[in-house]
Amino acid sequence: MWIQHKRLTIGVDDESVCATLLSPAPTLPGVLFVHGWGGSQAQDLERAKAISGLGCCCLTFDLRGHERTADRAQTVTREENLRDLVAAYDWLASHPQVDETSIAVVGISYGGYLATILSTLRSVRWLALRSPALYKDEQWGAPKRQLHADQDLAAYRQRRLQPPENRALAACATFTGDALLIEAEHDVVVPAPVMENYRAALAGAHSLTSRVLRGADHALSGQRAQQAFTDVLLGWITEMVVGAREEAAQVSLDEAERA
Amino acid sequence: MWIQHKRLTIGVDDESVCATLLSPAPTLPGVLFVHGWGGSQAQDLERAKAISGLGCCCLTFDLRGHERTADRAQTVTREENLRDLVAAYDWLASHPQVDETSIAVVGISYGGYLATILSTLRSVRWLALRSPALYKDEQWGAPKRQLHADQDLAAYRQRRLQPPENRALAACATFTGDALLIEAEHDVVVPAPVMENYRAALAGAHSLTSRVLRGADHALSGQRAQQAFTDVLLGWITEMVVGAREEAAQVSLDEAERA
Repeated sequence: MWIQHKRLTIGVDDESVCATLLSPAPTLPGVLFVHGWGGSQAQDLERAKAISGLGCCCLTFDLRGHERTADRAQTVTREENLRDLVAAYDWLASHPQVDETSIAVVGISYGGYLATILSTLRSVRWLALRSPALYKDEQWGAPKRQLHADQDLAAYRQRRLQPPENRALAACATFTGDALLIEAEHDVVVPAPVMENYRAALAGAHSLTSRVLRGADHALSGQRAQQAFTDVLLGWITEMVVGAREEAAQVSLDEAERA
Repeated sequence: MWIQHKRLTIGVDDESVCATLLSPAPTLPGVLFVHGWGGSQAQDLERAKAISGLGCCCLTFDLRGHERTADRAQTVTREENLRDLVAAYDWLASHPQVDETSIAVVGISYGGYLATILSTLRSVRWLALRSPALYKDEQWGAPKRQLHADQDLAAYRQRRLQPPENRALAACATFTGDALLIEAEHDVVVPAPVMENYRAALAGAHSLTSRVLRGADHALSGQRAQQAFTDVLLGWITEMVVGAREEAAQVSLDEAERA
């Protein structure tokens, strides 16, 4: 319950007035950002700032193999980066300001791939995927960098895949929260068939919002594509978070009416 | 400071990842609603619900002389209703969830008139006035109902008045926060000259947003006018509250960069 609704009386002179307080619950939604391979948390800060303005706690972090731990770039595995993500999630979910039942995860490319898998390990209410990548399940414990040499990813990412064939797609198939899927129109790294696989796999999501950023490439080069991404993400988070709060307020008001 | 910005490291395996938390401060903006003469807090609940969804604590209340205390309708004075408003303000400002430096007051008609005066007695950061009424300063302690008999309000509300001539306009002239002024196009109770007086008096406000609800009467009869009011109010509060939070987040990020 996010909105608390309380009827009260306030004393004034030797009389009183009837009042009603509508207040958000003390805990806030949490939003966790996962950057892509070769990226960093710095790329998410602007969007985190905007979303914190909506009354959310936002956490960004650098996956191992990046920034301060760039020396691990050649050896870090998907399993390790997934554990990074789980650790960051657990930190955020256990923060006293955060409602652990209201957590959004925003993942980009490799980070989106990891985010889908996280949703099978932890409670994710809102899942936003921007150009989520796809890898074969094999060599799960191998260095992430090695996959690009060993797996023919270009060919794999042109295939039509069913959820049972891929761990990330299987994760999407069991996801029942709200999903946002953002595609870059001219993405040659994560091409359209991958996005189609993800969209089809998300059939069981409570809601699905799918958008294409016109003229954008995988990296969202240029200010315009970045802004378009921010706009879509912010609009969706606003709808989800503010909408959920309003819904909770309505439930609270209805309950008070019946009482 | 509304947004807290913290760099941290999160342990994973025997390594760690760098992370950044952006979180709203534990206290929230407060929004106080003041209904018009003959109205009630029930009219504000829908808007309060929507605004609480933005992460604000909203308080509505019934002025003395209304609802449960309708027996006081013939005797209640402006001074008493102003004290009601001050009592409601103090209750909200002292609520542990509320940031007492970030309080908005939304007043309608008579409630708008009282809200301007409140801003001289208490700290009001954002002042939203919908069709604020105007009365002569004389007979301050007389029953409010009596003013309509004793004061030629119809003529008074056609006059061009300077702030020193009226307590509410004088209050506006010293107001330095952000102001929203909403006028009903076909308002014959609080006609255009009153609105012009208020707008001119608000010359020192940090920002001024003035809007006319097309085709609306004083009571905002009909669903369409009510919705237009809600849309304007919600858009303004969003700009003010979310904007202030984003600004605070930017300041916090800038400080962290310099550190």
